[in-house]
Amino acid sequence: MNREIKYPNGMKKEIQVKTETPKKNIKKAHLGIDFEALINESNQYYLTKNLACIYKKPTPVQIVKVEYPSRNKAKITEAYYRMPSTTDYNGIYKGKYIDFEAKSCHTTSFSFKHIYEHQIKHLEIVSNMGGISFLLIEFSLYHQVFLLTSDKLIKLYNESLKDGRKSIPYDYFVKEGYEIKLGFSPKINYLQVIDLLIDSKKEENAS
Amino acid sequence: MNREIKYPNGMKKEIQVKTETPKKNIKKAHLGIDFEALINESNQYYLTKNLACIYKKPTPVQIVKVEYPSRNKAKITEAYYRMPSTTDYNGIYKGKYIDFEAKSCHTTSFSFKHIYEHQIKHLEIVSNMGGISFLLIEFSLYHQVFLLTSDKLIKLYNESLKDGRKSIPYDYFVKEGYEIKLGFSPKINYLQVIDLLIDSKKEENAS
Repeated sequence: MNREIKYPNGMKKEIQVKTETPKKNIKKAHLGIDFEALINESNQYYLTKNLACIYKKPTPVQIVKVEYPSRNKAKITEAYYRMPSTTDYNGIYKGKYIDFEAKSCHTTSFSFKHIYEHQIKHLEIVSNMGGISFLLIEFSLYHQVFLLTSDKLIKLYNESLKDGRKSIPYDYFVKEGYEIKLGFSPKINYLQVIDLLIDSKKEENAS
Repeated sequence: MNREIKYPNGMKKEIQVKTETPKKNIKKAHLGIDFEALINESNQYYLTKNLACIYKKPTPVQIVKVEYPSRNKAKITEAYYRMPSTTDYNGIYKGKYIDFEAKSCHTTSFSFKHIYEHQIKHLEIVSNMGGISFLLIEFSLYHQVFLLTSDKLIKLYNESLKDGRKSIPYDYFVKEGYEIKLGFSPKINYLQVIDLLIDSKKEENAS
Protein backbone atom coordinates (compact mmCIF):
# COMPACT_ATOMS: atom_id res chain seq x y z
CA MET A 1 0.00 0.00 0.00
CA ASN A 2 1.38 3.36 -0.93
CA ARG A 3 1.16 5.71 2.02
CA GLU A 4 3.26 8.42 0.53
CA ILE A 5 0.78 9.81 -1.95
CA LYS A 6 0.56 13.32 -0.57
CA TYR A 7 4.28 13.95 -0.84
CA PRO A 8 6.04 14.85 -4.05
CA ASN A 9 7.71 11.94 -5.74
CA GLY A 10 11.23 11.91 -7.12
CA MET A 11 12.25 14.62 -4.72
CA LYS A 12 15.77 13.43 -4.27
CA LYS A 13 16.66 14.31 -7.83
CA GLU A 14 15.80 17.90 -7.11
CA ILE A 15 17.98 18.16 -4.06
CA GLN A 16 20.74 20.47 -5.15
CA VAL A 17 22.19 23.33 -3.23
CA LYS A 18 21.42 26.36 -5.32
CA THR A 19 22.23 28.95 -2.71
CA GLU A 20 24.37 31.96 -3.27
CA THR A 21 26.05 31.80 0.13
CA PRO A 22 29.59 33.19 0.17
CA LYS A 23 32.25 30.46 -0.07
CA LYS A 24 33.50 31.02 3.45
CA ASN A 25 30.06 30.36 4.84
CA ILE A 26 29.64 27.29 2.70
CA LYS A 27 32.85 25.88 4.13
CA LYS A 28 31.72 26.59 7.66
CA ALA A 29 28.30 25.23 6.94
CA HIS A 30 29.78 22.06 5.48
CA LEU A 31 31.89 21.45 8.54
CA GLY A 32 28.73 21.75 10.57
CA ILE A 33 26.87 19.46 8.20
CA ASP A 34 29.67 16.90 8.45
CA PHE A 35 29.34 16.88 12.21
CA GLU A 36 25.59 16.60 11.88
CA ALA A 37 26.04 13.73 9.42
CA LEU A 38 28.33 11.90 11.86
CA ILE A 39 25.77 12.23 14.63
CA ASN A 40 22.95 11.13 12.35
CA GLU A 41 24.98 8.11 11.25
CA SER A 42 25.65 7.24 14.88
CA ASN A 43 21.96 7.53 15.69
CA GLN A 44 21.15 5.32 12.72
CA TYR A 45 23.64 2.77 14.03
CA TYR A 46 22.08 2.88 17.50
CA LEU A 47 18.64 2.41 16.00
CA THR A 48 19.73 -0.54 13.86
CA LYS A 49 21.31 -2.17 16.90
CA ASN A 50 18.14 -1.50 18.86
CA LEU A 51 20.10 0.48 21.46
CA ALA A 52 18.52 3.91 21.23
CA CYS A 53 15.99 5.83 19.20
CA ILE A 54 17.29 9.37 18.78
CA TYR A 55 16.54 11.73 15.91
CA LYS A 56 17.42 15.20 14.77
CA LYS A 57 14.38 17.44 14.69
CA PRO A 58 13.59 19.02 11.32
CA THR A 59 14.74 22.59 10.79
CA PRO A 60 11.77 24.81 11.61
CA VAL A 61 10.53 26.77 8.64
CA GLN A 62 7.78 29.39 8.43
CA ILE A 63 5.91 28.71 5.22
CA VAL A 64 4.36 31.76 3.62
CA LYS A 65 3.42 30.73 0.12
CA VAL A 66 2.66 27.39 -1.50
CA GLU A 67 1.89 26.71 -5.12
CA TYR A 68 0.40 23.64 -6.75
CA PRO A 69 1.97 23.24 -10.17
CA SER A 70 0.41 19.81 -10.47
CA ARG A 71 -2.43 18.05 -8.73
CA ASN A 72 -0.58 16.35 -5.90
CA LYS A 73 2.59 18.37 -5.71
CA ALA A 74 2.87 21.25 -3.29
CA LYS A 75 5.75 23.59 -4.04
CA ILE A 76 6.74 26.01 -1.31
CA THR A 77 7.78 29.24 -3.00
CA GLU A 78 8.23 31.51 -0.01
CA ALA A 79 9.45 30.47 3.40
CA TYR A 80 11.81 31.61 6.12
CA TYR A 81 13.96 29.92 8.72
CA ARG A 82 12.43 30.10 12.16
CA MET A 83 14.08 30.03 15.54
CA PRO A 84 14.03 26.47 16.94
CA SER A 85 11.80 26.09 20.02
CA THR A 86 14.03 23.53 21.62
CA THR A 87 17.24 21.66 20.76
CA ASP A 88 18.52 19.68 17.79
CA TYR A 89 18.20 16.12 19.01
CA ASN A 90 16.00 14.09 21.30
CA GLY A 91 14.93 10.52 21.87
CA ILE A 92 15.10 7.53 24.17
CA TYR A 93 17.94 5.39 25.55
CA LYS A 94 17.60 2.76 28.27
CA GLY A 95 14.10 4.06 28.91
CA LYS A 96 15.48 7.54 29.58
CA TYR A 97 14.67 10.75 27.78
CA ILE A 98 17.73 12.13 25.98
CA ASP A 99 17.96 15.72 24.75
CA PHE A 100 20.91 17.61 23.34
CA GLU A 101 22.13 20.44 21.21
CA ALA A 102 24.98 19.81 18.75
CA LYS A 103 27.42 22.52 17.73
CA SER A 104 30.44 22.81 15.51
CA CYS A 105 33.02 25.25 16.74
CA HIS A 106 35.68 26.52 14.35
CA THR A 107 37.62 28.71 16.75
CA THR A 108 39.33 28.16 20.10
CA SER A 109 36.25 28.91 22.19
CA PHE A 110 32.53 28.32 22.03
CA SER A 111 30.65 31.59 21.87
CA PHE A 112 27.38 31.87 23.76
CA LYS A 113 25.90 33.63 20.77
CA HIS A 114 25.68 30.23 19.07
CA ILE A 115 23.11 28.99 21.53
CA TYR A 116 19.81 30.62 22.42
CA GLU A 117 18.89 31.38 26.00
CA HIS A 118 15.64 29.43 25.61
CA GLN A 119 17.65 26.39 24.47
CA ILE A 120 19.71 26.56 27.66
CA LYS A 121 16.44 26.85 29.61
CA HIS A 122 15.09 23.86 27.72
CA LEU A 123 18.12 21.74 28.64
CA GLU A 124 17.65 22.79 32.24
CA ILE A 125 13.95 21.88 32.26
CA VAL A 126 14.73 18.46 30.80
CA SER A 127 17.42 17.85 33.37
CA ASN A 128 15.12 18.90 36.22
CA MET A 129 12.44 16.53 34.92
CA GLY A 130 14.83 13.58 35.10
CA GLY A 131 16.01 13.52 31.51
CA ILE A 132 19.62 13.50 30.33
CA SER A 133 20.55 16.72 28.55
CA PHE A 134 23.85 17.99 27.25
CA LEU A 135 25.81 19.83 24.60
CA LEU A 136 27.72 17.84 21.98
CA ILE A 137 30.45 20.01 20.52
CA GLU A 138 32.99 19.57 17.76
CA PHE A 139 36.16 21.65 17.82
CA SER A 140 37.09 21.43 14.17
CA LEU A 141 40.55 23.01 14.73
CA TYR A 142 41.48 20.15 17.05
CA HIS A 143 39.41 17.41 15.42
CA GLN A 144 37.88 16.68 18.78
CA VAL A 145 34.36 16.11 20.02
CA PHE A 146 33.23 16.73 23.60
CA LEU A 147 30.09 16.14 25.58
CA LEU A 148 29.38 18.79 28.20
CA THR A 149 26.59 18.05 30.66
CA SER A 150 23.85 20.63 30.84
CA ASP A 151 24.47 21.44 34.52
CA LYS A 152 27.94 22.76 33.65
CA LEU A 153 26.71 24.60 30.57
CA ILE A 154 23.87 26.21 32.54
CA LYS A 155 26.21 27.24 35.35
CA LEU A 156 28.64 28.92 32.91
CA TYR A 157 25.81 30.55 31.04
CA ASN A 158 24.29 32.00 34.20
CA GLU A 159 27.70 33.26 35.29
CA SER A 160 28.17 34.89 31.90
CA LEU A 161 25.00 36.89 32.43
CA LYS A 162 26.68 38.43 35.49
CA ASP A 163 30.33 38.73 34.52
CA GLY A 164 29.78 39.40 30.83
CA ARG A 165 31.92 36.47 29.67
CA LYS A 166 31.07 35.78 26.06
CA SER A 167 32.36 32.27 25.46
CA ILE A 168 33.61 28.99 26.90
CA PRO A 169 37.27 28.29 26.04
CA TYR A 170 38.39 25.01 24.47
CA ASP A 171 40.45 24.24 27.61
CA TYR A 172 37.30 24.15 29.69
CA PHE A 173 35.87 21.38 27.51
CA VAL A 174 39.14 19.45 27.78
CA LYS A 175 38.99 19.72 31.56
CA GLU A 176 35.28 19.49 32.32
CA GLY A 177 33.79 17.75 29.30
CA TYR A 178 33.94 14.13 28.18
CA GLU A 179 35.95 13.64 25.03
CA ILE A 180 34.41 11.26 22.55
CA LYS A 181 37.02 9.71 20.28
CA LEU A 182 35.87 9.36 16.70
CA GLY A 183 35.28 5.76 15.78
CA PHE A 184 34.19 3.73 12.82
CA SER A 185 30.81 2.38 13.84
CA PRO A 186 29.30 4.34 15.41
CA LYS A 187 31.29 7.39 14.37
CA ILE A 188 30.53 9.34 17.57
CA ASN A 189 29.78 6.91 20.34
CA TYR A 190 28.21 9.34 22.78
CA LEU A 191 26.10 6.64 24.44
CA GLN A 192 29.29 5.50 26.21
CA VAL A 193 29.32 8.81 28.05
CA ILE A 194 25.60 8.59 28.77
CA ASP A 195 26.25 5.20 30.37
CA LEU A 196 28.77 6.89 32.67
CA LEU A 197 26.26 9.62 33.48
CA ILE A 198 23.54 7.08 34.29
CA ASP A 199 25.93 5.11 36.51
CA SER A 200 27.09 8.19 38.39
CA LYS A 201 23.47 9.22 38.98
CA LYS A 202 22.73 5.76 40.37
CA GLU A 203 25.71 6.07 42.72
CA GLU A 204 24.52 9.51 43.80
CA ASN A 205 21.09 8.12 44.60
CA ALA A 206 22.55 5.14 46.41
CA SER A 207 24.88 7.13 48.62
CA MET B 1 -1.83 15.02 11.39
CA ASN B 2 -3.84 14.78 8.23
CA ARG B 3 -1.69 15.46 5.20
CA GLU B 4 -3.80 18.42 4.13
CA ILE B 5 -3.18 20.32 7.32
CA LYS B 6 0.59 20.24 7.54
CA TYR B 7 0.75 23.97 7.05
CA PRO B 8 1.57 26.60 9.66
CA ASN B 9 -0.88 29.21 10.84
CA GLY B 10 -0.70 32.14 8.46
CA MET B 11 -1.25 29.83 5.51
CA LYS B 12 -5.02 29.52 5.68
CA LYS B 13 -5.64 32.38 3.30
CA GLU B 14 -3.04 31.12 0.87
CA ILE B 15 -4.64 27.71 0.82
CA GLN B 16 -7.99 29.22 -0.02
CA VAL B 17 -6.68 31.51 -2.70
CA LYS B 18 -4.19 29.31 -4.46
CA THR B 19 -5.74 25.87 -4.51
CA GLU B 20 -8.76 24.52 -6.19
CA THR B 21 -9.46 22.30 -3.22
CA PRO B 22 -13.18 21.74 -2.72
CA LYS B 23 -14.67 23.58 0.24
CA LYS B 24 -15.15 20.34 2.12
CA ASN B 25 -11.40 19.78 2.24
CA ILE B 26 -10.71 23.30 3.45
CA LYS B 27 -13.09 22.65 6.32
CA LYS B 28 -11.31 19.40 7.05
CA ALA B 29 -7.98 21.15 7.10
CA HIS B 30 -9.20 23.74 9.57
CA LEU B 31 -10.49 21.10 11.94
CA GLY B 32 -7.09 19.44 11.89
CA ILE B 33 -5.30 22.68 12.68
CA ASP B 34 -7.69 23.26 15.57
CA PHE B 35 -6.84 19.87 17.02
CA GLU B 36 -3.14 20.58 16.67
CA ALA B 37 -3.64 23.96 18.35
CA LEU B 38 -5.47 22.32 21.24
CA ILE B 39 -2.63 19.87 21.78
CA ASN B 40 -0.02 22.61 21.54
CA GLU B 41 -1.93 24.70 24.06
CA SER B 42 -2.12 21.72 26.41
CA ASN B 43 1.62 21.14 26.05
CA GLN B 44 2.25 24.81 26.76
CA TYR B 45 0.11 24.49 29.88
CA TYR B 46 2.05 21.41 31.02
CA LEU B 47 5.32 23.24 30.46
CA THR B 48 4.21 26.32 32.38
CA LYS B 49 3.09 24.13 35.27
CA ASN B 50 6.42 22.30 35.12
CA LEU B 51 4.64 18.99 34.60
CA ALA B 52 5.94 17.87 31.24
CA CYS B 53 8.07 19.10 28.37
CA ILE B 54 6.47 17.91 25.14
CA TYR B 55 6.71 19.60 21.75
CA LYS B 56 5.45 19.13 18.24
CA LYS B 57 8.30 18.52 15.84
CA PRO B 58 8.59 21.00 13.00
CA THR B 59 7.14 19.94 9.66
CA PRO B 60 10.02 18.49 7.66
CA VAL B 61 10.82 20.49 4.57
CA GLN B 62 13.36 19.82 1.84
CA ILE B 63 14.94 23.13 0.99
CA VAL B 64 16.11 23.41 -2.59
CA LYS B 65 16.71 27.09 -3.20
CA VAL B 66 17.57 29.95 -0.88
CA GLU B 67 18.03 33.58 -1.81
CA TYR B 68 19.59 36.41 0.18
CA PRO B 69 17.69 39.57 -0.69
CA SER B 70 19.42 41.34 2.18
CA ARG B 71 22.54 40.62 4.18
CA ASN B 72 21.09 38.67 7.04
CA LYS B 73 17.81 37.45 5.67
CA ALA B 74 17.61 34.10 3.97
CA LYS B 75 14.50 33.64 1.84
CA ILE B 76 13.63 30.11 0.85
CA THR B 77 12.21 30.25 -2.66
CA GLU B 78 11.91 26.56 -3.47
CA ALA B 79 11.13 23.79 -1.02
CA TYR B 80 8.96 20.71 -0.72
CA TYR B 81 7.20 18.89 2.07
CA ARG B 82 9.06 15.77 3.12
CA MET B 83 7.81 12.63 4.73
CA PRO B 84 8.25 12.80 8.53
CA SER B 85 10.83 10.31 9.88
CA THR B 86 8.98 9.73 13.08
CA THR B 87 5.85 11.04 14.78
CA ASP B 88 4.40 14.47 15.51
CA TYR B 89 5.11 14.86 19.21
CA ASN B 90 7.68 13.78 21.74
CA GLY B 91 9.07 14.81 25.08
CA ILE B 92 9.39 13.96 28.74
CA TYR B 93 6.88 13.39 31.56
CA LYS B 94 7.72 12.05 35.04
CA GLY B 95 11.17 11.16 33.71
CA LYS B 96 9.63 9.02 30.98
CA TYR B 97 9.99 9.39 27.25
CA ILE B 98 6.66 10.21 25.60
CA ASP B 99 6.04 9.83 21.88
CA PHE B 100 2.80 10.10 19.93
CA GLU B 101 1.16 10.76 16.62
CA ALA B 102 -1.89 13.03 16.50
CA LYS B 103 -4.64 12.64 13.91
CA SER B 104 -7.89 14.31 13.07
CA CYS B 105 -10.48 11.95 11.69
CA HIS B 106 -13.49 13.39 9.87
CA THR B 107 -15.29 10.16 9.08
CA THR B 108 -16.56 7.23 11.14
CA SER B 109 -13.33 5.25 10.94
CA PHE B 110 -9.61 5.94 11.00
CA SER B 111 -8.01 4.88 7.74
CA PHE B 112 -4.55 3.30 7.87
CA LYS B 113 -3.57 5.40 4.90
CA HIS B 114 -3.30 8.38 7.25
CA ILE B 115 -0.39 6.86 9.11
CA TYR B 116 2.86 5.60 7.63
CA GLU B 117 4.15 2.13 8.26
CA HIS B 118 7.45 3.54 9.53
CA GLN B 119 5.55 5.68 12.04
CA ILE B 120 3.86 2.56 13.40
CA LYS B 121 7.30 0.90 13.59
CA HIS B 122 8.63 3.96 15.38
CA LEU B 123 5.87 3.80 18.02
CA GLU B 124 6.68 0.11 18.47
CA ILE B 125 10.42 0.74 18.91
CA VAL B 126 9.71 3.45 21.49
CA SER B 127 7.38 1.15 23.40
CA ASN B 128 9.91 -1.71 23.34
CA MET B 129 12.58 0.65 24.67
CA GLY B 130 10.45 1.54 27.69
CA GLY B 131 8.89 4.75 26.40
CA ILE B 132 5.20 5.57 26.34
CA SER B 133 3.84 5.76 22.81
CA PHE B 134 0.31 6.17 21.49
CA LEU B 135 -2.06 7.68 18.99
CA LEU B 136 -4.10 10.72 19.93
CA ILE B 137 -7.13 10.94 17.69
CA GLU B 138 -9.93 13.42 17.25
CA PHE B 139 -13.21 12.24 15.76
CA SER B 140 -14.57 15.55 14.58
CA LEU B 141 -18.02 14.13 13.75
CA TYR B 142 -18.46 13.14 17.39
CA HIS B 143 -16.42 15.94 18.98
CA GLN B 144 -14.46 13.32 20.84
CA VAL B 145 -10.78 12.70 21.46
CA PHE B 146 -9.29 9.30 22.23
CA LEU B 147 -5.90 7.98 23.21
CA LEU B 148 -5.10 4.57 21.78
CA THR B 149 -2.00 2.86 23.14
CA SER B 150 0.56 1.82 20.55
CA ASP B 151 0.30 -1.90 21.39
CA LYS B 152 -3.34 -1.92 20.24
CA LEU B 153 -2.60 0.20 17.19
CA ILE B 154 0.31 -2.04 16.19
CA LYS B 155 -1.75 -5.20 16.65
CA LEU B 156 -4.54 -3.86 14.43
CA TYR B 157 -2.07 -2.63 11.86
CA ASN B 158 -0.31 -5.99 11.65
CA GLU B 159 -3.65 -7.75 11.32
CA SER B 160 -4.61 -5.37 8.55
CA LEU B 161 -1.57 -6.44 6.56
CA LYS B 162 -2.97 -9.98 6.61
CA ASP B 163 -6.71 -9.50 6.34
CA GLY B 164 -6.66 -6.39 4.17
CA ARG B 165 -8.70 -4.31 6.61
CA LYS B 166 -8.22 -0.66 5.70
CA SER B 167 -9.32 1.22 8.78
CA ILE B 168 -10.17 1.18 12.49
CA PRO B 169 -13.84 1.95 13.18
CA TYR B 170 -14.89 4.65 15.66
CA ASP B 171 -16.51 1.99 17.85
CA TYR B 172 -13.15 0.37 18.43
CA PHE B 173 -11.78 3.62 19.90
CA VAL B 174 -14.87 3.91 22.14
CA LYS B 175 -14.29 0.38 23.40
CA GLU B 176 -10.50 0.09 23.52
CA GLY B 177 -9.25 3.65 23.68
CA TYR B 178 -9.27 6.16 26.51
CA GLU B 179 -11.60 9.04 25.91
CA ILE B 180 -10.19 12.42 26.88
CA LYS B 181 -12.93 14.92 27.67
CA LEU B 182 -12.17 18.40 26.39
CA GLY B 183 -11.43 20.77 29.23
CA PHE B 184 -10.53 24.37 29.74
CA SER B 185 -6.95 24.29 30.97
CA PRO B 186 -5.45 22.14 29.66
CA LYS B 187 -7.75 21.68 26.72
CA ILE B 188 -6.80 18.04 26.15
CA ASN B 189 -5.54 16.58 29.39
CA TYR B 190 -3.89 13.48 28.00
CA LEU B 191 -1.41 13.26 30.90
CA GLN B 192 -4.29 11.90 33.00
CA VAL B 193 -4.34 8.85 30.76
CA ILE B 194 -0.56 8.56 30.83
CA ASP B 195 -0.79 8.47 34.64
CA LEU B 196 -3.13 5.50 34.33
CA LEU B 197 -0.75 3.81 31.90
CA ILE B 198 2.23 4.36 34.21
CA ASP B 199 0.26 2.98 37.17
CA SER B 200 -0.90 -0.10 35.27
CA LYS B 201 2.69 -0.80 34.19
CA LYS B 202 3.83 -0.53 37.79
CA GLU B 203 1.14 -3.03 38.79
CA GLU B 204 2.20 -5.37 35.99
CA ASN B 205 5.79 -5.22 37.17
CA ALA B 206 4.77 -5.73 40.81
CA SER B 207 2.61 -8.78 40.15
